Amino acid sequence: MDVEEALRKLRAVRRFRDAPLRDEDLRAILDAGRRAGSSKNLQRWHFIVVRDRATLTELAKVGPFAGHLAGGAAAIALITPDPAGADMPLSVTWDLGRAAQNMTLAAWARGIGSVPATVYDHDLCRSILGYPPDQHCEYLLNFGYPAEERSITRPARIGGRRPLVEVVYYERWGATAPSADRS
Amino acid sequence: MDVEEALRKLRAVRRFRDAPLRDEDLRAILDAGRRAGSSKNLQRWHFIVVRDRATLTELAKVGPFAGHLAGGAAAIALITPDPAGADMPLSVTWDLGRAAQNMTLAAWARGIGSVPATVYDHDLCRSILGYPPDQHCEYLLNFGYPAEERSITRPARIGGRRPLVEVVYYERWGATAPSADRS
Repeated sequence: MDVEEALRKLRAVRRFRDAPLRDEDLRAILDAGRRAGSSKNLQRWHFIVVRDRATLTELAKVGPFAGHLAGGAAAIALITPDPAGADMPLSVTWDLGRAAQNMTLAAWARGIGSVPATVYDHDLCRSILGYPPDQHCEYLLNFGYPAEERSITRPARIGGRRPLVEVVYYERWGATAPSADRS
Repeated sequence: MDVEEALRKLRAVRRFRDAPLRDEDLRAILDAGRRAGSSKNLQRWHFIVVRDRATLTELAKVGPFAGHLAGGAAAIALITPDPAGADMPLSVTWDLGRAAQNMTLAAWARGIGSVPATVYDHDLCRSILGYPPDQHCEYLLNFGYPAEERSITRPARIGGRRPLVEVVYYERWGATAPSADRS
């Protein structure tokens, strides 16, 4: 799939077919995350792949909006050093977002939908996944083949994203159009 | 460009030709950022496009590794609510990473290189770009057509990324291979 098509058509998917991910699809997703750029190339991440249905059902309880994890084909828990740790820079979370978007797009290009889940109950998540005290899981990505074709083809919701004119400034905060006298 | 090719070949580019971005290229980059998913669709971001050479030269002083900004075709300053503000969730920075990766990939698919710059001198950055006290700029993305063809075609550096076996666990922290008895 073409990059611009993927970026334009990408939609969050929360309902999935009851079918496991093909091994080569899972590998492509993980590899896209692994390859992501990171600050000073630190790659402060581990990815825990969860496919066991009982474990996914437990993970669905880590937050009020995480219920969809119970029905996914695979969750990938994104583990980093604790971003709230002493002197931990914002780049831990920024880098993780970049890696997650790589995974999301690699999946989408293979017909696989995804949606993130935010962890609220960190003790529960830690007990399920077993990462050590110096590690943290703020997000999981949930992957699967979409239950409904429409979830791939539906057009973007009108008003779903702010238009460029509300998001972009030129040269300085508040300047909504390129300056006419720009050199 | 195909998504998997883009993800596999993407390289950071720090040296650029002295040529402005085409308007349609800049628009595609901004649109890819605008379209990114965000927590609760909050879209907590503004993008300030900087193309004025004098301003870019000033921005190159915002951090010890930001010198490349002086030679780019356009910088996009990524502005969010202050992630260090009271009760501000990690998702401000996580969402921004996802949007930034969209922009980076949209650029790459059009032959445009990019690299992030981290802001260290926030007072200087604020004085240059004029965003208000409740807003924050941690990162800028620097874009341009690569100075050297090689910066697009060079293979990934061996050892530049940790291999999957060091990054991925299965079902639980520390389990480096899928369990044989996985149902």
